[in-house]
Amino acid sequence: MNELAARTSGSVHVIGAGLLGASVGLGLREHGVDVTIEDLSPTTVALAADYGAGRPRSAADDPPALVVVATPPDVVADVIERALASYPEAVVTDVASVKLAPFRELTRRGVDLTRYVGSHPMAGRERGGAIMARADLFTARPWVICRDHETPAAALALVESVALDLGGVLIEMTPEEHDRSVGLVSHLPQVVSSLLAARLEPASDQAIGLTGAGLRDTTRIAASDPELWVQILGANRAPVVELLDAFAADVADFAEALRDPERAGAKRRIADLLSAGNRGVARIPGKHGSSERFTTITVLVDDRPGQIARLLTELGELGINMEDLRLEHSPGAQIGFAEIAVLPEVAERALSDLAERGWRTL
Amino acid sequence: MNELAARTSGSVHVIGAGLLGASVGLGLREHGVDVTIEDLSPTTVALAADYGAGRPRSAADDPPALVVVATPPDVVADVIERALASYPEAVVTDVASVKLAPFRELTRRGVDLTRYVGSHPMAGRERGGAIMARADLFTARPWVICRDHETPAAALALVESVALDLGGVLIEMTPEEHDRSVGLVSHLPQVVSSLLAARLEPASDQAIGLTGAGLRDTTRIAASDPELWVQILGANRAPVVELLDAFAADVADFAEALRDPERAGAKRRIADLLSAGNRGVARIPGKHGSSERFTTITVLVDDRPGQIARLLTELGELGINMEDLRLEHSPGAQIGFAEIAVLPEVAERALSDLAERGWRTL
Repeated sequence: MNELAARTSGSVHVIGAGLLGASVGLGLREHGVDVTIEDLSPTTVALAADYGAGRPRSAADDPPALVVVATPPDVVADVIERALASYPEAVVTDVASVKLAPFRELTRRGVDLTRYVGSHPMAGRERGGAIMARADLFTARPWVICRDHETPAAALALVESVALDLGGVLIEMTPEEHDRSVGLVSHLPQVVSSLLAARLEPASDQAIGLTGAGLRDTTRIAASDPELWVQILGANRAPVVELLDAFAADVADFAEALRDPERAGAKRRIADLLSAGNRGVARIPGKHGSSERFTTITVLVDDRPGQIARLLTELGELGINMEDLRLEHSPGAQIGFAEIAVLPEVAERALSDLAERGWRTL
Repeated sequence: MNELAARTSGSVHVIGAGLLGASVGLGLREHGVDVTIEDLSPTTVALAADYGAGRPRSAADDPPALVVVATPPDVVADVIERALASYPEAVVTDVASVKLAPFRELTRRGVDLTRYVGSHPMAGRERGGAIMARADLFTARPWVICRDHETPAAALALVESVALDLGGVLIEMTPEEHDRSVGLVSHLPQVVSSLLAARLEPASDQAIGLTGAGLRDTTRIAASDPELWVQILGANRAPVVELLDAFAADVADFAEALRDPERAGAKRRIADLLSAGNRGVARIPGKHGSSERFTTITVLVDDRPGQIARLLTELGELGINMEDLRLEHSPGAQIGFAEIAVLPEVAERALSDLAERGWRTL
């Protein structure tokens, strides 16, 4: 039994054996933890057990040290309340993507939340379900812990150690901070992207034919599951409505400045809003957002298998480290573009070395 | 002298030797065409000539068969008018990103536009200037031709042959169709992305720390040059204002439904708008938009140089064709993710074969 197994007294109970619940189970079992699982659907329990995410709970089992609630957002408060009552010694956490609504609902019901620690691993996959679960789903992803000033240190430490051992990057926030933050960096972009993509539905084929990388990028997440997002947005209503109101005002403000560009200050207003966008995007961490730190070189590649691999292998041979890579194809074209981000100081050499090896660069 | 050189009687004059003008010059010279160039800046002419984009025009030169106007949008009408007057036998085209405003302005001035054919190659680079010009800038990119029903067939054929020989994919539209289309697929997404990114400027570091791939994608084009976009948006004011008004109304409508989700039809309205986004994004052609045609597998890669190349080489060895690739890194993590789109029928095999070779897949 390793350290985590010792801390959890060897037993964690997971309620809800979908993608997140089953992935928590799989990850904990890799750390030697005895995981029990339950789900409204017996089929889901059996499936998750087959995948190795845990075993069904039996009456003879010792009570768990930790309960992880991984149900859909609309029932999470009910399930947390029941878990706190059923396992009066256990620490209870959840992995729902909205934190304040269940916390408020439980407080309103008078539930003692001393043993509850909210959490939100920022992980997911395009498709849900136990069948998609992976022990390393949380690896290198932010994992938000919503502590309360009354949360006992031992309870907090238990939830944090589970998040860390599953590979998450810990971030502490209040439920309010969490919900406002995900509203801004996740829920607002989702709605904006969906509404932008919705404008394409009635567009002419000709117009769609002019689509470039910009529209592709801005609308990619519009392919997300509407049913899940109705739940998420409903659960984080207040911050999202506030953000949408402000955003609608921004769009109207921009339209107003553009409507009459000869009015004093109108062009300046447009330029200011576009510049604020420059500054906002520059704040995003990670390779994709760091356009200022890297120079992008563009290499033409044809559609044959192995071309990209050959390009990257040759870059490696040239000693050029690729910081980011994007592929782009125009509809109907046999030729695509590989946009490769490199350190500015090696960009010129990369271009000339690649050209020397016969690659066409832009 | 090849076919294109013959059609142009060996001579094309390019006005404006920035990125697009110099790239047109370079591309035509590769086809054996004699290209002359002019620019308000003598330095730019000298630079473009040094790069091989053409030679300065002299009084002894025969008049050109074709004039390509490649100036900034705000002066393009003036330059087209002057070119039609200066070269009374030449066909005149331009490459500006907005087509109706110059056409209307020239008509208002009573300019005979029989010899004018508008065009818009959908190509660009992050940085402008002759120094960034490339003969293959237009390869595999859509190239819009705005014909008039009075355009003589010979003039149209000349401009189309230039676009084709420079590698463009021809699309014919009226100026109105073009401006509405680029308003929808390029100008609206630009403004929306900029305004979304602008909301990040005052955000907390904690909130920014939760950023995932969705926000990165939706705000990537917010890094574009504000000065250029003030000109483009100003020149395509009417369609963009109309699109922004409609979009602001969509956002307000969504906010209204979310504000009171218990009202009859509110949840349905939210789900409908999100579903319309699903259908809109499914219309986008090309690899990035074709999420329905491909299955995405996710492979963990560490930050060492050569890892991606090795992964792609092994995929090639396994006979798995990669349809698309995205890289993603969480801030602070040593591990990233390669999201690889493959045909659905090979996805399972790809996952198991990669796992067998020691790759961690999600």
